[in-house]
Amino acid sequence: MQRSQAEDLDRDDPLAAWADEFVAAEAGLIYFDGNSLGRLPLRTRARLDAVVGEWGRDLVRGWAGWIDLPTTVGDRLGALLGAGAAQVLVCDSTTVNLYKLASAALDARPGRTAIVTDTGNFPTDRYVLEGLARSRSLDVIQVVTDPIAGVRREDVAARVGAEVALVTFSHVDYRSGAIADVAGITADAHAAGALVVWDLSHAAGAVPVALDEWGVDLAVGCTYKYLNAGPGAPAWLYVARRHQSDLVPPIWGWFGQADQFAMGPRFEPAAGLTRWLAGTPPVLGLAAVDEGVAMLAEAGLDALRAKGVALTGLAEALWAEWLEPLGFAIGSPPIRGSHLALRHPEAYRLSRAMIEEAAVVPDFRPPDILRIGLAPLSTRFVDVWDGFVRIRRLAETGAWQRYDIEPGRVT
Amino acid sequence: MQRSQAEDLDRDDPLAAWADEFVAAEAGLIYFDGNSLGRLPLRTRARLDAVVGEWGRDLVRGWAGWIDLPTTVGDRLGALLGAGAAQVLVCDSTTVNLYKLASAALDARPGRTAIVTDTGNFPTDRYVLEGLARSRSLDVIQVVTDPIAGVRREDVAARVGAEVALVTFSHVDYRSGAIADVAGITADAHAAGALVVWDLSHAAGAVPVALDEWGVDLAVGCTYKYLNAGPGAPAWLYVARRHQSDLVPPIWGWFGQADQFAMGPRFEPAAGLTRWLAGTPPVLGLAAVDEGVAMLAEAGLDALRAKGVALTGLAEALWAEWLEPLGFAIGSPPIRGSHLALRHPEAYRLSRAMIEEAAVVPDFRPPDILRIGLAPLSTRFVDVWDGFVRIRRLAETGAWQRYDIEPGRVT
Repeated sequence: MQRSQAEDLDRDDPLAAWADEFVAAEAGLIYFDGNSLGRLPLRTRARLDAVVGEWGRDLVRGWAGWIDLPTTVGDRLGALLGAGAAQVLVCDSTTVNLYKLASAALDARPGRTAIVTDTGNFPTDRYVLEGLARSRSLDVIQVVTDPIAGVRREDVAARVGAEVALVTFSHVDYRSGAIADVAGITADAHAAGALVVWDLSHAAGAVPVALDEWGVDLAVGCTYKYLNAGPGAPAWLYVARRHQSDLVPPIWGWFGQADQFAMGPRFEPAAGLTRWLAGTPPVLGLAAVDEGVAMLAEAGLDALRAKGVALTGLAEALWAEWLEPLGFAIGSPPIRGSHLALRHPEAYRLSRAMIEEAAVVPDFRPPDILRIGLAPLSTRFVDVWDGFVRIRRLAETGAWQRYDIEPGRVT
Repeated sequence: MQRSQAEDLDRDDPLAAWADEFVAAEAGLIYFDGNSLGRLPLRTRARLDAVVGEWGRDLVRGWAGWIDLPTTVGDRLGALLGAGAAQVLVCDSTTVNLYKLASAALDARPGRTAIVTDTGNFPTDRYVLEGLARSRSLDVIQVVTDPIAGVRREDVAARVGAEVALVTFSHVDYRSGAIADVAGITADAHAAGALVVWDLSHAAGAVPVALDEWGVDLAVGCTYKYLNAGPGAPAWLYVARRHQSDLVPPIWGWFGQADQFAMGPRFEPAAGLTRWLAGTPPVLGLAAVDEGVAMLAEAGLDALRAKGVALTGLAEALWAEWLEPLGFAIGSPPIRGSHLALRHPEAYRLSRAMIEEAAVVPDFRPPDILRIGLAPLSTRFVDVWDGFVRIRRLAETGAWQRYDIEPGRVT
């Protein structure tokens, strides 16, 4: 393949101009990790500066403009998730939100004794569920998923019986990028009387999502990947309207109180979604989510998805031509999110060499995965071409062999 | 009293220069709410700008410098709290942290049936405890506290028996500013076999704190008041070293895992403090806490406390001379934190008129409290004098009478 083919794709890309809407990294860097930490939008830098200015100038009076951010930003994000108004809230971390929703779902299914998830679910999800199961003496049934194909509806259906209170998976697999059948699995769970919580961290902003249409009960996700909200920005949660009056959060906080500033003697949960708020909302992070979501909405999810498919398609074609002969295998299915998994027995050492010697930033995931994240809004087709040229050269030279074999900290 | 007396106090104030270390609010504004949302330090504005730059430039590689912030900033904050290293963690919100610690404390006292707190504790604290008690079928014993004197050791001792698992209060009362006898109440709780959680939101950075020396088990607090970390900045938690291996958090997250990036199949809590982390830490907020804490440490807590006492002392003297004759009562005891409560039947309408007509920003707290927060690092003695002149004039003119009686949103 010639570089001109990638250049042609960029020339014809309706989203091409968006790459200039991000702060430039160091010259020559190729960033394949927008699905771990998305790049910094120019608008977000300006917005953060403005919000810091509001703090300095307006002081406590600034809350008049900040206090509704969890719901207003949630509504804007909801539009990208196929969620009608007043069902998405931006707050806390994905971990804490999953804990809140899963805990409430278990409360709503008393007498049932099991939670169903899968061996390939993201670690924090598995740990939250393990902790909840431990404290309530429940079983966690882990469906064994194929490392490439991910969660399959038929495998789940076989494990979801009348004893199951909660079914919870990731929409897009954090390693392979496999896309689960959310609507089908949700329907099967409902047929068995269980509730579902979906984790959309690797899906939001990357693949089509229709939470309302799919009948999803509850969902969570982070904002620092395709939503570009920055390191540790607040996460989100979705509670379908039909569950908003019956489910009760485990953490009763003052921002979830019906009449917060009356500061009354007893907790009276807010009538709608805001009962899921707990403490004081993180204003800077919320502003960053707002900007990231606005950019995705402006670009349009259909166009983003089409480009994501084309980007991972180009990467797969380059893998077949250059990297398969060098011992790399493909770790993603044909239908996938916006990242591609390459597998190699020395993936960890390769990832370090790529970052330190080739100015290409991928992600390593145990045991043998190089994750190539191709955020549609900020990645050019020539980035994929140039990055794969560098990976090929590095693999050919064997320069990675002098790196430690011990995985370090890469998030 | 003459203004020159306040000017003299400023001239002799060793901390006077610190007021210039904050971003100027609008000309003429007098800010009496640094105990709700602290002002923006110039250094913090610069640090936030730098961290946003790190995100843009370093992208995911920035985590090498960010990932330890919860513990490094926690250690720096711990030094202000009388806590030895590796016992304070900056993470989540005060509400979520209180939930985590109280839940673990209850787990550690199985068979006991009650939680002791007080009617005057901050709403989010009372709500968290109410929720935990509800889910575990426990009783919440609310000690009735005097609205001015706050929590009294003898009143608590009378309620702490062998059935009590957990005793939890605020160190400094959010309304009156009364300072609880942390060491005494903690000793009484321990004598009964209970654990304690203290909320230091209105204490940290304002009054002397000696968590280790006082034998405190667990504590939480926010960072957006005297620590000046900004709206919704992450909170902190303290777990005494002796409890770090036996207490288990309720929320099991990947940042609390012993070997996080091995992403192993089961949750193995980190050996020390970091098991209390849950999701991905909020980097911008952590950087802001770091700067705020560094400034307080540099100013010195003894000097800060001395100035805080002098500031509320001046405010009380001005109240006696000008405001008591106009129907204001004092709502704080002689020994108090760094805020002074003034009580007036029309406190809410007065607070609105002060903000909108007199450019003085106090805080309203139900039912009848004007909270005058005097953050020692950023408040001048002449601010107190000038602000009280304005309050006096407003009360004399009766201009507040045309404001709505319904409390709006003031956080």
